[in-house]
Amino acid sequence: MRSETAPVTLASIQAPVHGGLEAVQRELRRMIQSDFGLIAEVNSHLLHMQGKMFRPTLVLLANEATTPVEEARVASLAAVIELVHLATLVHDDSVDHSVLRRGMPTINALFSHQTSVIMGDYLYSRAVIELVRLNDLEPLRVLSRVTNEMTIGEMRQLLAHEPLNFSEEEYDLLIRAKTATLISAACEVGALRASAAEREAARRFGEYLGMAFQVVDDLLDYTEPEAVTGKPSGSDLREHKVTLPLIYALPRLDSPSRQEITELWNTPEPDDRQIAGVIGVVERAGGLTYARERASQLAELAEAELEALRPCSARDGLRAAIPYVLERRR
Amino acid sequence: MRSETAPVTLASIQAPVHGGLEAVQRELRRMIQSDFGLIAEVNSHLLHMQGKMFRPTLVLLANEATTPVEEARVASLAAVIELVHLATLVHDDSVDHSVLRRGMPTINALFSHQTSVIMGDYLYSRAVIELVRLNDLEPLRVLSRVTNEMTIGEMRQLLAHEPLNFSEEEYDLLIRAKTATLISAACEVGALRASAAEREAARRFGEYLGMAFQVVDDLLDYTEPEAVTGKPSGSDLREHKVTLPLIYALPRLDSPSRQEITELWNTPEPDDRQIAGVIGVVERAGGLTYARERASQLAELAEAELEALRPCSARDGLRAAIPYVLERRR
Repeated sequence: MRSETAPVTLASIQAPVHGGLEAVQRELRRMIQSDFGLIAEVNSHLLHMQGKMFRPTLVLLANEATTPVEEARVASLAAVIELVHLATLVHDDSVDHSVLRRGMPTINALFSHQTSVIMGDYLYSRAVIELVRLNDLEPLRVLSRVTNEMTIGEMRQLLAHEPLNFSEEEYDLLIRAKTATLISAACEVGALRASAAEREAARRFGEYLGMAFQVVDDLLDYTEPEAVTGKPSGSDLREHKVTLPLIYALPRLDSPSRQEITELWNTPEPDDRQIAGVIGVVERAGGLTYARERASQLAELAEAELEALRPCSARDGLRAAIPYVLERRR
Repeated sequence: MRSETAPVTLASIQAPVHGGLEAVQRELRRMIQSDFGLIAEVNSHLLHMQGKMFRPTLVLLANEATTPVEEARVASLAAVIELVHLATLVHDDSVDHSVLRRGMPTINALFSHQTSVIMGDYLYSRAVIELVRLNDLEPLRVLSRVTNEMTIGEMRQLLAHEPLNFSEEEYDLLIRAKTATLISAACEVGALRASAAEREAARRFGEYLGMAFQVVDDLLDYTEPEAVTGKPSGSDLREHKVTLPLIYALPRLDSPSRQEITELWNTPEPDDRQIAGVIGVVERAGGLTYARERASQLAELAEAELEALRPCSARDGLRAAIPYVLERRR
């Protein structure tokens, strides 16, 4: 793995595809443009709360690093990936009753639960329309499989509330389905015209990177304050969601510590003191260290896949995405 | 229009495509088969509460009446149409917080709101996977447009709660988007290999039939008891939904009648007496008669489109679907 240096910024990863990303932004705006008042209003809010374009960046880099297609085409593919990402965020927030995302109110909080369900469907069907426009079944094949897997991931998430019944193996299945599939799809659709070996390497790179991404996300929920992540810290514990640090810690706890966890799980709305207590318990049992090691392990697997691609600055960009994912704090 | 005879049964319309419908049922079961426990459980409930296969029947009849494709292929297309229909029902019930459909508990009532949102996404993405499998962009083009229009229809529905601000023109846009698009798509995908003129006639037939279908649905909400429709009667009024009978009646009311409606609209949970009062007001103002006439008018427009197809028993089946829609009581 890389030695200790200054943290990798997303901007530095995005530098080689900067122009491409601007085209993606334009495409995205075109795709969700609507003359129906309520939809236009929700879309404008979505564009404001929009993230870091991490997935479109991966599409552009994977495209550059393999067999590039026309600029307009890859911009559309990357915009569709972001569109599907937005659709899933809108539905996930509605399913979780989340009120904040990236420090901004969610669609369900700002509009309504109803509007969120409909808008998610709107965005997803727009994505399919745009894929049909590209006149190629291949990206549709990838994305329909992936969006279906994501729904299974969401189902698994609903079941991930019982600490004693949720194993690390099930956690892996969950994060692969929920998060890694779309990041993997971003890399794969960027490499659709590449050789089968390159395409498969890009897909697997994205899968390992995406799993690492979610492990880090789950860690940040334990370690970072709301001011940094834009959502309340400890919110997974607050919602009684079991993630990797707790899975590791649980069989290693003494009986009083285990009791603290049982109490938190039996409290419908645990307070900050309780959350902080359990975070301490998990940390002392090595849960955070273990999750960090698992993320590094996944990062190494991701890096190894890049050997199948030719050396170039876009491949360097994909490689730099690894420490970016590991070191990010939000 | 046809003269007074015994009511047309769906079974008689389905007779010419009976074998085809059995293949559609098998296809549908295959498509939603899942080894994930919760999904399998929801699917089995969906198959139990499943409807009358009206839309798949239209696919099979339109196919027979134009340029038939291989049996397995049309069965898949028809099953996908039903799958999309199921996906929209699941999300609609969740958006509306409905507890009953066809006399059975809805998915949101039986499982949870969360499960409904995720299951709708699951079913819709399964439908896209199955369309990709057919290796033809054309049905995908039709269905992605239609599912997107349906979401706009659902948005319009959210706004259809202000009697003074909801015109008949907006009602038409609403029912076209919400209901007619999918019935129209059923007819169109059945005629995908037909001439452009036949395909367009099939599409428009479905659109008029679908609009008539929704007008009748909205009428039944005024006229039929729960024992017949499987959902509480007057439930649109209860939920303050404006439909055609009320739109027609409103500008024709004297001031006390208008007052009754205002009162119902100001009551968060109106009781049966209030609902019955307003139904009486709307009926006396001619709202039900007007809606019946509008349904007949749409039926005539639908029938006229059938002239573009060659005379055959499948075309007779499509024609018989018109009185079936007009005369149905649930």
